[in-house]
Order: sequence, then C-alpha cells, then structure tokens
Amino acid sequence: MTRRERALAVLRDARADVLVAADPGTVAWLTGAEGDLESGPSPFALPPLAVLDAEGALTLVASEDDAGGAECAVATYPGFTLEPLDPLGGARSALAPLVAGRRLAVEAGSVAAGLLDGAAWVDVTGALLRARAIKDADEIAALRAAVALCDAGQAALRAALAPGRSELELWARVRAAIEARAGRRVPLLADLVSGPRTAGVGGAPGARTLREGELVLCDLVPRLGGVWGDSCATVALGEPSAWAVAAHRRCVDALEAALEALRPGVAAGDLDALVRARLDFPHHTGHGIGGSTHEEPRIVPGSATRLEAGMVVALEPGLYGEHEGVRVEQVALVTADGCDVLSGHDLAL
Amino acid sequence: MTRRERALAVLRDARADVLVAADPGTVAWLTGAEGDLESGPSPFALPPLAVLDAEGALTLVASEDDAGGAECAVATYPGFTLEPLDPLGGARSALAPLVAGRRLAVEAGSVAAGLLDGAAWVDVTGALLRARAIKDADEIAALRAAVALCDAGQAALRAALAPGRSELELWARVRAAIEARAGRRVPLLADLVSGPRTAGVGGAPGARTLREGELVLCDLVPRLGGVWGDSCATVALGEPSAWAVAAHRRCVDALEAALEALRPGVAAGDLDALVRARLDFPHHTGHGIGGSTHEEPRIVPGSATRLEAGMVVALEPGLYGEHEGVRVEQVALVTADGCDVLSGHDLAL
Repeated sequence: MTRRERALAVLRDARADVLVAADPGTVAWLTGAEGDLESGPSPFALPPLAVLDAEGALTLVASEDDAGGAECAVATYPGFTLEPLDPLGGARSALAPLVAGRRLAVEAGSVAAGLLDGAAWVDVTGALLRARAIKDADEIAALRAAVALCDAGQAALRAALAPGRSELELWARVRAAIEARAGRRVPLLADLVSGPRTAGVGGAPGARTLREGELVLCDLVPRLGGVWGDSCATVALGEPSAWAVAAHRRCVDALEAALEALRPGVAAGDLDALVRARLDFPHHTGHGIGGSTHEEPRIVPGSATRLEAGMVVALEPGLYGEHEGVRVEQVALVTADGCDVLSGHDLAL
Repeated sequence: MTRRERALAVLRDARADVLVAADPGTVAWLTGAEGDLESGPSPFALPPLAVLDAEGALTLVASEDDAGGAECAVATYPGFTLEPLDPLGGARSALAPLVAGRRLAVEAGSVAAGLLDGAAWVDVTGALLRARAIKDADEIAALRAAVALCDAGQAALRAALAPGRSELELWARVRAAIEARAGRRVPLLADLVSGPRTAGVGGAPGARTLREGELVLCDLVPRLGGVWGDSCATVALGEPSAWAVAAHRRCVDALEAALEALRPGVAAGDLDALVRARLDFPHHTGHGIGGSTHEEPRIVPGSATRLEAGMVVALEPGLYGEHEGVRVEQVALVTADGCDVLSGHDLAL
C-alpha cells in the first residue's frame, strides 16, 4: 500500500469524509512538504495541513511561504505580508472549500480549534501513527540520509574531544558537521552531556567543561526530508573508568542481542524484555523513528505490537550508575528475515 | 498594569470566564515557562497552556517534562513514559478542572481542537497581541539579554569573514558565539546570505562560498527567557561595490531618521512612511518584538497604531538591487520622550 492508501484506510475506518492532518510528521509523510520546525509558530501563518478526501484527492493547505516541496495539489493563502495579520483567517479560507459540510477525521492534539469551528470530527491520531509505522522505499531512503547525518555528527564529536572544551563547544562542532553534510540547516533534538551529567540519562549541552577520563554521552536526532534520524554513542576522553568499560560492554552486547532478535513477528514487548533481562535502565529499549522522533513500534515493556518488515526502529540500551552513564543506539530496518542496520557510526567507548 | 492584569482585561472584554492561551509567546509572557520550540511537537506531550480565570488565578498546564520555569501554579500530566502514549488525554485531564462548563477565551489558531471539544469559546488572539505590545521592566531586561545574543552573533560574523568560507561555516561560528554567550542552546531564526543572494532579501545559510568584495546579510533572531532578540547587519568581505557603499549609507541614514522620530504618539504608519520616502523596499519598516518574532506595533504602511512608551520595536530598512542587497536593523525601546536603542552591534559595512 502507498502512503496515501494507508491514510485512506484510516479515513474509511473512521467513517469520515475528509482527513485533516496537522502533525508535521503526518503532513510531510503525506505531502512531501517538510515545513519549518525550528522556531515555533510563524506570526504570519498556521502550520501546514494535509487534507485527503475519500476519493484520494490530496491537498497541502499552507501559506505561500510554506508550500515548498509539496508533491500534491496545494491550496495557499498569503504568508508574509504588509497587510493586517490574520493567519487563522487565511488558513480557514484555504481549508473551507475542502471540508465544508463534511465529517472530518483529524489529529485532534495538533489541529487548531479555530479551523474546525462547528464541524463534526473524530480523532485519528493513533490510527495514523500505526499507519505510518511501515516505511516505503522513499521513506527508507530518507531515513538512511537522516541517519547519515547522525554518523557525521558522531564522527565530529570524536574528533572534537579535548580537555577543557565545554559541552557547548563540542555541540557547535557536532552541529556544524551535521549541517555541512546536509548542506543546509536542520532541526536537531539532542542530548549532549559530560562527566557526572551522563548519569542523568540525557540533557542539553551546557557550559560544563570536559576533563581527562570523563565520558560524553551524545544522542543526535536530526530531521531531513521530513524524517528524523537517531543515534547515540558514549565516548571517553582518555582512559575511562572500569565501571564505564564494563557498562559499555554490557550495553553493546545488549544492543547486538536485540539486533539479532529483530525480525518480523517478534513482539515489541519481548524485544524489550530481552534487553531488560540484561540491563536495568529507566527508559524504553527503543522506538519507531520516521515523521516523529518517537513513534510506533514502541519497544517498551508489555507491548503486544508485532514487528513487521518495513518498520524502522531505534534501539538504545543504556546503563546509568551513580557517577556515570552509558548508552549506545543504532537504527535498523526490519527486513523479511531479520534486520538491516542503517547506522554507520562508531560505537567504541 | 501587570501582565496578568492586561490578560484579565482581555478576558473581561471577551465576556468569557477563563482564558486558555496556547501561543508559546503568550504562555511564556503569562507564566514564565519558556517551553521547547526547536524540534516541533513532542510525541509525549502537547505544548504548554496558560490558563487564567476571572479571579486572576493563573495555571500552567503542561507535561511534567515541560513545567520548568513556571512562576505560577502548575497542573501537570505525565510526559516521557513507558506506558501507552496519550498526550491529548493527559492534557485534557489536567485542563478539565480549570475549564469545565466555562465560557472560554482562546488563541484559536494555536490551541488544539481536542482540548476544546464541546466548550463555547471566543478567539482573543488579536487582543492578546495588543496586550503584549507594552513591555514591563522584566520583559525589557529579558529583551536586552536576547538582543545581547544578537550582538555576540554579529561580532562573530565579522570575525569569521574569509574568502572561501561557506555561508554554513559562517553560520556555525555565529550560532556557536550566541550559544556560548547564552550558556545554553537557543532557538534561532535567521537570514544568512552572501553575494547575489543578498539581493533576495533573506534566506537560510547554504553551501555557497564567499568571495572577495561580496556582501553577507545576516539577520539574527534568537530566543532567550521567552522573548526574541533581533538584529541585522550587512558586511563586506574586502572592498564593497560602489552600489553597496551608497545603499548602506542610505539604509543607515533611514534607520537613524526613524530612531530620531520614534517616540510616544507617533503613528506606526507615519514612521513607516518616513523611511519609505527615503528607500523603496518590499518589506515592513519594522515590527514589535517580544514573545513573538513579529508582533504589535507593526511598522507598516497605513497603520494607525500609535507608539507608546514601553513598546519595543525592531526597525530594519533595506535596499535590494539587481545583484546585491543591504539591510540594517536595531531594536529600540520607546521611552517617555524618545527611544533607547537596545542593540549594540556594529552597523558598519
């Protein structure tokens, strides 16, 4: 099934006439338009919408500034303007002909209330997340490219390690390498913590400076082509502690065991249990990755979701002690009989 | 009037019982909680809300991960979790006791439809933008700090100029300087274009490399403490063209004339006309700056809005030729009898 067919099935199951998607991941998934995520809502426009009717007609509803990249029909309204601002009015006008008098299926946690005033709607957020879990060839290619950005960032981190450098100095080099590889700015969610901060699982880079023998934990989640990459490595400046060496060995072993077990038919909860039997850690074993940074299939305790070919998951076992923490993460595509690791970064401590 | 009193006046004028603000600028303005803007919506939570009742009780409604920085009551719901995801359900549960059965005043282009299901509401987006236009002492201090980040970025740009460097290499140095000054990551909206790209008004940095005699136009809009700074400079690598020198002189003169005229009582449209009589350019002369990157008072043709003490405006005259473009921008606070320029960056070509 194509992405559009998957979305149509969601619309049918909801017994609605028109799908109005507003989550940036779903909008990019359906229309190809990435949108702009890095600085919050625009004063000139509402975030783009993807509108799909029961006959399969797909329209991106966006301001003229945000319609780039659409691989479908577009319905635009003015963006940047010298006239009085009315982003909601503009979006309503562009949307109205597509939804008037119809029963809507929406992402109710994303779509603005002012766009649905008076319309009957049903929430299909969960169904769309499930529909997005199986990736097609274009999405897999996009995910490979996004993961390659992670690889570039992790390599830059290793090259940048030096005593006295701050987390923010490392961060600047990592980010520069990612954007140089992409040839453009990219949104980037990340943990970058050093020394005792690694015991706290994650966090944003700060002014703390690195000392000999300390760890740096770096988890990079850049967005390119409408999908997010993901990778984590933990690296030592100089000689790591005995705890760090042992913890790192156990994390890598657990990751390898999970990748060995990753194949169609496995329950996500069983994959989680396999890792959690080896390590005790406070977060998920992994998660689907694509239009969202964390999506189906979630590799969490008790999940009955069965892995299927075409799913793409990030697996990220970790161990966090009193003074230090370690996490390693790779992204893998579930194939017909196993998996294909998309990550190419160095996992060595 | 305090910010809360301004918001209460909006609520009263709307004849509603409870204000539910969802724009990140308004939420930070009312609650002090900055929220996280750099990577789009979280898979675990809805964006934070500010809820104000007619008695003045103010509550931040946010996931446990997003409640930091609140200077008021908080109503939280789980964020990051191993349990099944239901960010909308969590937000609804936390919001319900505050709004059940009440008539709501909302930001209808921002608040999620799933939060208002069944409630009567009226849109107060425009009224809140007007209420936010006058800054108090804390906001002015925050704006000074945000503008100081711009200054750091503009200084880094000048230091980084060299033939053969790409826009992205300049960008990485600018951003690193801003985040080093802030001591943390900051959202950053920006134009950074070089050579013939400067004729196009703006754009994101790309792979293009800089040559001797070319211009770089750099417009930096970082967010710190819930408010955005803003500044623009145009700089030449080596000897600029005669056109660039003349255009730059005219832009600086126009900016100085606008700052000279900036005082309470002046109509925004008259300020715009004063600049536009000297220069022909396709964008606004300026805009208010604060919780949004572009807000009241907008310095655009025909605006009848009168400047008032406590407003903070960015003024940014530009000239764009066939092959090159120039823009200069400073941020100024309107005082009782004139203005106070907050920007400290070098405007020289």
